[in-house]
Amino acid sequence: MIKKTMTPAFNETDALGHINNTVVPRWFENARVPIFRIFTPDLNPNDWHLIVVKIEIEYTAQIGYQHDVEITTEVSHVGNSSFVVDQCVYQSGVLCAKGKTVMVHFDYQAQKPASLTDDQKLHLNEV
Amino acid sequence: MIKKTMTPAFNETDALGHINNTVVPRWFENARVPIFRIFTPDLNPNDWHLIVVKIEIEYTAQIGYQHDVEITTEVSHVGNSSFVVDQCVYQSGVLCAKGKTVMVHFDYQAQKPASLTDDQKLHLNEV
Amino acid sequence: MIKKTMTPAFNETDALGHINNTVVPRWFENARVPIFRIFTPDLNPNDWHLIVVKIEIEYTAQIGYQHDVEITTEVSHVGNSSFVVDQCVYQSGVLCAKGKTVMVHFDYQAQKPASLTDDQKLHLNEV
Amino acid sequence: MIKKTMTPAFNETDALGHINNTVVPRWFENARVPIFRIFTPDLNPNDWHLIVVKIEIEYTAQIGYQHDVEITTEVSHVGNSSFVVDQCVYQSGVLCAKGKTVMVHFDYQAQKPASLTDDQKLHLNEV
Repeated sequence: MIKKTMTPAFNETDALGHINNTVVPRWFENARVPIFRIFTPDLNPNDWHLIVVKIEIEYTAQIGYQHDVEITTEVSHVGNSSFVVDQCVYQSGVLCAKGKTVMVHFDYQAQKPASLTDDQKLHLNEV
Repeated sequence: MIKKTMTPAFNETDALGHINNTVVPRWFENARVPIFRIFTPDLNPNDWHLIVVKIEIEYTAQIGYQHDVEITTEVSHVGNSSFVVDQCVYQSGVLCAKGKTVMVHFDYQAQKPASLTDDQKLHLNEV
Repeated sequence: MIKKTMTPAFNETDALGHINNTVVPRWFENARVPIFRIFTPDLNPNDWHLIVVKIEIEYTAQIGYQHDVEITTEVSHVGNSSFVVDQCVYQSGVLCAKGKTVMVHFDYQAQKPASLTDDQKLHLNEV
Repeated sequence: MIKKTMTPAFNETDALGHINNTVVPRWFENARVPIFRIFTPDLNPNDWHLIVVKIEIEYTAQIGYQHDVEITTEVSHVGNSSFVVDQCVYQSGVLCAKGKTVMVHFDYQAQKPASLTDDQKLHLNEV
């Protein structure tokens, strides 16, 4: 499991005084960088091999601006070409959101999914 | 069912040349404005009564920058204090994403869910 | 002069209850699409020829969520390889922001500015 | 002068493969948090006393996704009710953007500027 501390931005708040719900998918994406590096160690966008096919997020508590959040990230399932990333947002010890992202190892040239290599599976299982 | 045409923004693209997946929740929020108006006719944020408790989005095709998208919005379920909004993104006739958003009629003063009135249920069922 | 009506998004508000100031550069970008089309008629991002070198925005009134805004866009100066776009945001008849964007006709292959053609200058002067 | 390291987000890139220019004002806002704390030590948005009246940004080099950026922030001028914040973005030692933000000490109740206290001026001059 990877833990990442992030600081909510003022421009991520909304008129209700909290972090807007549409911000959480962006935070989750940011927290998946160690997973991106399994496929593209130098993060070169021209050498990208992942695509998001599904996201699911439950919002369990409002997120404020005043305190940092902790994002936890772990891989809960590894399939043939796809895998599932489970992520949570905690603020001051309270679980505020939890989500699942289904990602696919994708060949952008051929525009189709590609099997995960044993090495990629091994690294994914370590997250 | 409500249909809304939106124009993808250049700043919504990402380095893969397509609209970033984190943009779709924002588009869906924009397309839910007619639902917001059921609860707050003048859209005054100080008189807000809704909270998002869950989102779920499947990405079925990549969304490009060059063409407008059509967002469809309909209410698929109305409960006691919550309801479900089904939304789709179409571009050039292709279904690119479909999502469900669970929203709750929420009393921000009391910080707890509130029952939907018969009038609100009626209007929701018309969407 | 081009006029474009836009609807503020809930996720563009901030905790002060107004549209966050960082949103205005995004709106201005969206309103420059007719200028983008002078250089890339089909808006294909792989065939892009413009780069932003400077922005300047004065915020003269707070922008609310409840009402549409009108963005005006006009080209105030055309140079050899650069040009200046003047833009304003009006809401309910009140000038809320005015900005200047300096753009350069840019050759991304060679990574250097390119002279504007007579045709491009002509079209820019018409905006 | 305050220095802050930030990690560009994938959703901040655009189809040109670089960080979109509209992202820089958001980064600058994030880097101004120590200045926000002079006016609102606990960052409570309900107790906010600042408003942005002008921004100016020059883009001097393209910003990539692959490497962290360093944001420098310093106060270059302190007036009666306003002050100027100078900020730069560096990536891999290269100056990529520099900007000025004019902020005003603002009374949101009375909806008008308020004089800076001696204490606030002192703290601003230390940034």
